[in-house]
Amino acid sequence: MKIIVDGMGGDNAPGEIIKGCINAIKKFDINIIIVGNKEKIEKELKIYDYNKEKIEILHAEDIITNNDDPALAIRRKKNSSMVLGLKSLKNGLGDGFLSAGNTGALLAGGLFVIKRIKGIDRAALTSVYPTKKGISLIVDAGANVDSKPEYLEQFGIMGSVYMENILARKNPTIGLVSVGTEEGKGNNLVKGTYSLLKEAPINFIGNIEARDIPMGEADVIIADGFVGNVILKLTEGVASFLLSELKDIYNKDIFSKMSALLVKSGLDELKSKADYREYGGVPLLGIQKPVVKAHGSSDALAIENGIRQLIDFIDKDVINIIKNIKIKP
Amino acid sequence: MKIIVDGMGGDNAPGEIIKGCINAIKKFDINIIIVGNKEKIEKELKIYDYNKEKIEILHAEDIITNNDDPALAIRRKKNSSMVLGLKSLKNGLGDGFLSAGNTGALLAGGLFVIKRIKGIDRAALTSVYPTKKGISLIVDAGANVDSKPEYLEQFGIMGSVYMENILARKNPTIGLVSVGTEEGKGNNLVKGTYSLLKEAPINFIGNIEARDIPMGEADVIIADGFVGNVILKLTEGVASFLLSELKDIYNKDIFSKMSALLVKSGLDELKSKADYREYGGVPLLGIQKPVVKAHGSSDALAIENGIRQLIDFIDKDVINIIKNIKIKP
Repeated sequence: MKIIVDGMGGDNAPGEIIKGCINAIKKFDINIIIVGNKEKIEKELKIYDYNKEKIEILHAEDIITNNDDPALAIRRKKNSSMVLGLKSLKNGLGDGFLSAGNTGALLAGGLFVIKRIKGIDRAALTSVYPTKKGISLIVDAGANVDSKPEYLEQFGIMGSVYMENILARKNPTIGLVSVGTEEGKGNNLVKGTYSLLKEAPINFIGNIEARDIPMGEADVIIADGFVGNVILKLTEGVASFLLSELKDIYNKDIFSKMSALLVKSGLDELKSKADYREYGGVPLLGIQKPVVKAHGSSDALAIENGIRQLIDFIDKDVINIIKNIKIKP
Repeated sequence: MKIIVDGMGGDNAPGEIIKGCINAIKKFDINIIIVGNKEKIEKELKIYDYNKEKIEILHAEDIITNNDDPALAIRRKKNSSMVLGLKSLKNGLGDGFLSAGNTGALLAGGLFVIKRIKGIDRAALTSVYPTKKGISLIVDAGANVDSKPEYLEQFGIMGSVYMENILARKNPTIGLVSVGTEEGKGNNLVKGTYSLLKEAPINFIGNIEARDIPMGEADVIIADGFVGNVILKLTEGVASFLLSELKDIYNKDIFSKMSALLVKSGLDELKSKADYREYGGVPLLGIQKPVVKAHGSSDALAIENGIRQLIDFIDKDVINIIKNIKIKP
């Protein structure tokens, strides 16, 4: 198996990306193509002692940054590590692609270079969501802000397949975000989606209200990209608001400061529950080849876990499972 | 000034409603009409020593419960405390109406009985949102799950007037919830709304991302009813998830339990920040008379504060201010 890695994407590139790749070839039976500035990558690789046959470099002159307009960057920066990486995947030089770079550009690149699966109307971004029970998967996390019921139905099916095969949740529950749990509650998009998901070959548990998402009421949370994005960002905002209020409480006097020390380990544990580095990355669902997006601030551990997830993605043949479900009789 | 109060709405009716009314007539220079079951209300009133001239009872045989379908209940339960209260308001028997009953029914009743302000296409539910800086107001909190840019523009204007006059925030900032702060980010609804709000006579600060809502980035948060509802419920869910995790941490051992005691007062303070009883209630915006919705679990303090808010609503002539802004030249 050969994994293609964007050596230049993310806040800690190329250093942490290279370190993650080195750890990955030692742990997993894979080869890696690192795409990016040859000189910089070679300099990083020199730090480590590793089997030289397992890593090759594909030189890319350019970099797509987070300030680039996604669609424009994919069209114009033909020699960027991201575009070259995706093209290499398209041309069969490797089996999957990992990038910690510009999310929008990776999505645009996935669509323009790799293309959609036949029968799938839109590609979705996904995101892992930490819950009381562990984690849920949100689809769509922001790719399609104006959706149709058919798109959300397909996201439900793809999310179910991914959750079952990669995140090992048997017969995962699929919930549709709405303003009430009863069928018939919601806006036109949700009502239309409900009747499609009800007939889909998945474990659809109906509408779920936003307050039940953190409780882990559904393994896969279906929402259009606008709502999915609001859910992710609001969760972040509420959590950091509460933690900052808590900090104020703890800093009040010497007693509360002592108290803070006593529960610090517990709080650290709580924080690590939401640590993206453990999950590694999230898939782009709906395109013809396995692509995983690692978090922009990924360190070596996150990259290693992202590669592990990509290996599963390829091994379990998720894309063919999706293709076979979508082929109507 | 005469305030009409739904004596039978909410989880603690009529006991706490009556107690709140008694406290209100002692504090404020008003008369109150309590609508509801005469016998039950008289029995509660007997507990207190008060100026009998200030409270009258309007008997209502029926009650609209939370299990009733909102629109159906308004049409069929003509003798309910809510419908009779709204009709009394419509007919000029009082200056404003307060209810802690079924939210959807109150909205439907406001539209059917009181009617919309001319030039306003939809009525909106509002909600108070506790933030780092104090409170923000969310419009729409769930009344219109399929909105148009014109509706949201009107919500922005009405929210601004209410915030400035009733919640005493001078030249309040108005933010539109979207997936990115730049103009042009968002779905079609948000893009259309942005260009209208830009031209509106309000302090529009552009798009705000959901993560900035808890920080108090905008005094008034504009969202369509679906998204507004998701924001409110998700905030509740994330907060109770984090507090329950915290509780687990505190219950771990004797040291963490001691620690919990030490910060308890601080945590209580944090909780009270989000206490709806302090705010009393939220207005229905867009109808021709002042109507305030108190929380379903309102106690006497919440009812008293709801009445105080209603008094301001009437005193400051908010509805005429809205009417005058909306009259195009």
